[in-house]
Amino acid sequence: MPASQHAAPKSDIAISQDAPKRPIVDLAREKLGIAADDLEPYGRYKAKLSLDLVDSLKDRPQGRLILVSAITPTPAGEGKTTTTVGLADALVHLGEKAMVCLREPSLGPSFGQKGGAAGGGYAQVVPMEDINLHFTGDFHAIGAAHNLLAAMIDNHIYWGNALGIDSRRVTWRRVVDMNDRALRDIVCSLGGAANGFPREAGFDITVASEVMAIFCLARDLADLKARLGEIIVASTRDRAPIRARDLGAAGAMTALLKEALAPNLVQTLEGTPAFVHGGPFANIAHGCNSVIATTTALKLADWVVTEAGFGADLGAEKFVDIKCRMTGLAPDCVVLVATVRALKMHGGAKKEDLRHENLAALEEGLSNLRRHVENVQKLGLVPVVAINRFSADTPAEVALVRDACAALGVTAVVADHWAEGGKGAVDLARAVVAAAESGRSRMTLLYPDDMPLIEKIRTVAREIYRAKDIALDAPVAEQLAAYQAAGFGRLPVCIAKTQYSFTTNHEIKGAPADHIVHVREVRLAAGAGFVVAICGDIMTMPGLPRLPAAVGIDVGPDGRLTGLF
Amino acid sequence: MPASQHAAPKSDIAISQDAPKRPIVDLAREKLGIAADDLEPYGRYKAKLSLDLVDSLKDRPQGRLILVSAITPTPAGEGKTTTTVGLADALVHLGEKAMVCLREPSLGPSFGQKGGAAGGGYAQVVPMEDINLHFTGDFHAIGAAHNLLAAMIDNHIYWGNALGIDSRRVTWRRVVDMNDRALRDIVCSLGGAANGFPREAGFDITVASEVMAIFCLARDLADLKARLGEIIVASTRDRAPIRARDLGAAGAMTALLKEALAPNLVQTLEGTPAFVHGGPFANIAHGCNSVIATTTALKLADWVVTEAGFGADLGAEKFVDIKCRMTGLAPDCVVLVATVRALKMHGGAKKEDLRHENLAALEEGLSNLRRHVENVQKLGLVPVVAINRFSADTPAEVALVRDACAALGVTAVVADHWAEGGKGAVDLARAVVAAAESGRSRMTLLYPDDMPLIEKIRTVAREIYRAKDIALDAPVAEQLAAYQAAGFGRLPVCIAKTQYSFTTNHEIKGAPADHIVHVREVRLAAGAGFVVAICGDIMTMPGLPRLPAAVGIDVGPDGRLTGLF
Repeated sequence: MPASQHAAPKSDIAISQDAPKRPIVDLAREKLGIAADDLEPYGRYKAKLSLDLVDSLKDRPQGRLILVSAITPTPAGEGKTTTTVGLADALVHLGEKAMVCLREPSLGPSFGQKGGAAGGGYAQVVPMEDINLHFTGDFHAIGAAHNLLAAMIDNHIYWGNALGIDSRRVTWRRVVDMNDRALRDIVCSLGGAANGFPREAGFDITVASEVMAIFCLARDLADLKARLGEIIVASTRDRAPIRARDLGAAGAMTALLKEALAPNLVQTLEGTPAFVHGGPFANIAHGCNSVIATTTALKLADWVVTEAGFGADLGAEKFVDIKCRMTGLAPDCVVLVATVRALKMHGGAKKEDLRHENLAALEEGLSNLRRHVENVQKLGLVPVVAINRFSADTPAEVALVRDACAALGVTAVVADHWAEGGKGAVDLARAVVAAAESGRSRMTLLYPDDMPLIEKIRTVAREIYRAKDIALDAPVAEQLAAYQAAGFGRLPVCIAKTQYSFTTNHEIKGAPADHIVHVREVRLAAGAGFVVAICGDIMTMPGLPRLPAAVGIDVGPDGRLTGLF
Repeated sequence: MPASQHAAPKSDIAISQDAPKRPIVDLAREKLGIAADDLEPYGRYKAKLSLDLVDSLKDRPQGRLILVSAITPTPAGEGKTTTTVGLADALVHLGEKAMVCLREPSLGPSFGQKGGAAGGGYAQVVPMEDINLHFTGDFHAIGAAHNLLAAMIDNHIYWGNALGIDSRRVTWRRVVDMNDRALRDIVCSLGGAANGFPREAGFDITVASEVMAIFCLARDLADLKARLGEIIVASTRDRAPIRARDLGAAGAMTALLKEALAPNLVQTLEGTPAFVHGGPFANIAHGCNSVIATTTALKLADWVVTEAGFGADLGAEKFVDIKCRMTGLAPDCVVLVATVRALKMHGGAKKEDLRHENLAALEEGLSNLRRHVENVQKLGLVPVVAINRFSADTPAEVALVRDACAALGVTAVVADHWAEGGKGAVDLARAVVAAAESGRSRMTLLYPDDMPLIEKIRTVAREIYRAKDIALDAPVAEQLAAYQAAGFGRLPVCIAKTQYSFTTNHEIKGAPADHIVHVREVRLAAGAGFVVAICGDIMTMPGLPRLPAAVGIDVGPDGRLTGLF
């Protein structure tokens, strides 16, 4: 996230701390018609909706769903979350009843790189410091449920291993919500017989947990428990899968998650209601907020603006092929966020030169935007391009982007919500309303359920990444065939690859084609309900940088937090 | 905790779930005069007091403090927490303004052995399932702060190790709130150069963290941050200490803890206000709830009933010599909880025979109670014995206990709060009021600050455990001398030994004397402000049993939790 889009900014945390906020109970009543009894407040500005209320909304009519996605990310920053927030605020300026649905940020990375994940400038969800830290404890609950299952595996082996778990084939790792590279690869159960059987193990960051993906895809508590039970954690020596339910873990894991499953209500700086709930990785998982939050928001508001992780090749594709496939949801319009700066980087400009006008680089970089536009259209959806304004953008640059989009028959609108809040995105909101109400979006899944797994991966690679083909080493192909044979062939695929390129090489920007996507590994997420195809180095446990943000974080004598964002 | 004291019981969780509860905001206003604005609600029945309110109470007069302790614990169960709750409820029956202060239970053990830690029967704090699970997230926050520091240590080494940390001498482990023996001893940072320098490491359960002890001893946010900075995490090759502040970690750790530091308000089944806040181990730490909760309660109520971990030899001694020494608190009376069952076990009866009258075993076992009475008196405090009634107790047995106490000049009262709530402990409450108002308690610290560390350990062993002497191997004695030389000689000592005996052998019940207390290891908790003397096997990471409670835990379709307690 860019620290600032314009000169002389006030820090995000200062804007958030200084903002007048409505008590969440009042906001829920006035804007959503929710009674205080249906809320579980967490402090004055955060609340969970009761799951009973969520259930009771099932038969209500449904609002329109707007998916915010983006071009391929660059170090210049795109501002997808700010655009999601700003667009919802802008819809309210137009007199519409709108809500935002965002992912919850992970706590650990806040102590690595400076910068939160609750929007920025005047397009934020608040209270941002709470949201970026413990919030309502959902991720802690997910971590506890994950680690309970891990403890039950080693405990089962310790007490006689009646299930015959092969300790070399335990695939369930542990998690912690912290950037801690020292935990990536460990040997556990050392120290003698009382501590179990030594084996290789490791930790991922909590957001990479399959429990997180399940949490975000579960329709309700019963579905959550059923999915948790399906998690495959290990195999026997003869490769029979061991599931969480074989260990009797699903009920207790559900007990740890039952409060967390209720969606978290907060507000934007302008008082628009926002659900911030769930936050799976966008590489090894599907990268969008919980199904429960999205479906509930659609019952409460006429317009729901949500985002998916990374660029549209990963985020929008997975939103459609995983989340929408499993739930019947379908966006009425896709906003593609682009910045002049980022497009110039796709055209070869260096980060340090971005403040100078460079129409040649921009023209070159527009190939990336065009590709994403086409991809969104392949999914049957109508794109609207949001040009997220930075102060160095020149009129000629903005015109060039707009003209390029017009040539594709696509509306492109400049938005300045970062500096101006919802007011700055009113034009964008108008374009989105027009696109959504046109009824031209007819979502198509990229592949049918009954396509073989290997063909599903190939289809995404060819259609979305524009690869010539995929390549799989023999063991990977065999593993995929084994999943197919074991009855998992109808699952969608979740491709984990770099977000910085259509290829698997993060340095290749723009709109490359005819590359080969090398599938290095496949993993079955039987509880979440997808097969992960890992193409390239995917880091599921980040490290801290040389000078971690933690060093600059402090709490003053007045209790005020500084240095976090 | 015993599953039931009487026949045909309703389960603790069913009693808690079915209990009518007052909204916490109403309860705080009516019973404590606290305005809604000074509360941060966590759902309808839990809230944190704002730290601003806590500060504003400083000049108010202070109520009376009653410490609940017990005889040496046995598998028969004593019921210290139920007595703490029942006594406070009984004080309310007498027309007094009373509050309870308890420790927060650890989440992990709930999935091991069945049984919560929020009282039992009709003497519980509620909502007990929330309190026993995530509650207000304090322990998750403590775990995150602890693990951030751990990550920063390995990260510092990874990026060049400017401080010269000796990776063999990193004493700061990691924590997780889960019973997971596989994590006791690990090798971390495996997998190649990108993951750091392999070294031996391990995990403790969160309640064993020094951050937990600091959290519970901190007077305010500034004190918390200062203490966190003092934590010694490692040493250099030439044995110079490395502190958390050398790594720049204290501010960020404080940021993670600042919400948690505010005391949690809940209620007993009878609507008596209760703080449940902080929960350090009672062996390697001091074993009582937070100083902030206790001092705040004393400003809000005329009577504050609190408990300390394990028997009076460990809990009451540490309460006085650590918590009271650091804060100026002093109990007005000590309740010693005993049961006929447990005393018979101290006299040699087997657990399976406890339902039969056995006056001989009881007479023999009374030696344990007498010893604790004497110890409490050595601390200058007036004891009142609470005979926590079980249905199998016979009139002759109860009379024997009462007579034995009378012979010591000590009041002993039968209490039946488990079955009857506060009404069942009214006689106990009267005795406590009389003892406290007599003014006969004049707390004496067991040793002065300027006594050398080794003499402090010897003093506790001789005076409280009635040992002949202590024994230290040369390296341990040298380490202790090194702490003394480094300026830590004025700290109190925290003795970690089995809670099941006055000796270091958990099998020796009753009132043994003239044994040798072998000090196997000493550790400096420079942030918490005490020196830990480890005498015997102390487990800081429990394991799960063969059939973990987790297997029986479930969530019904109605969202109701079953099988947890």
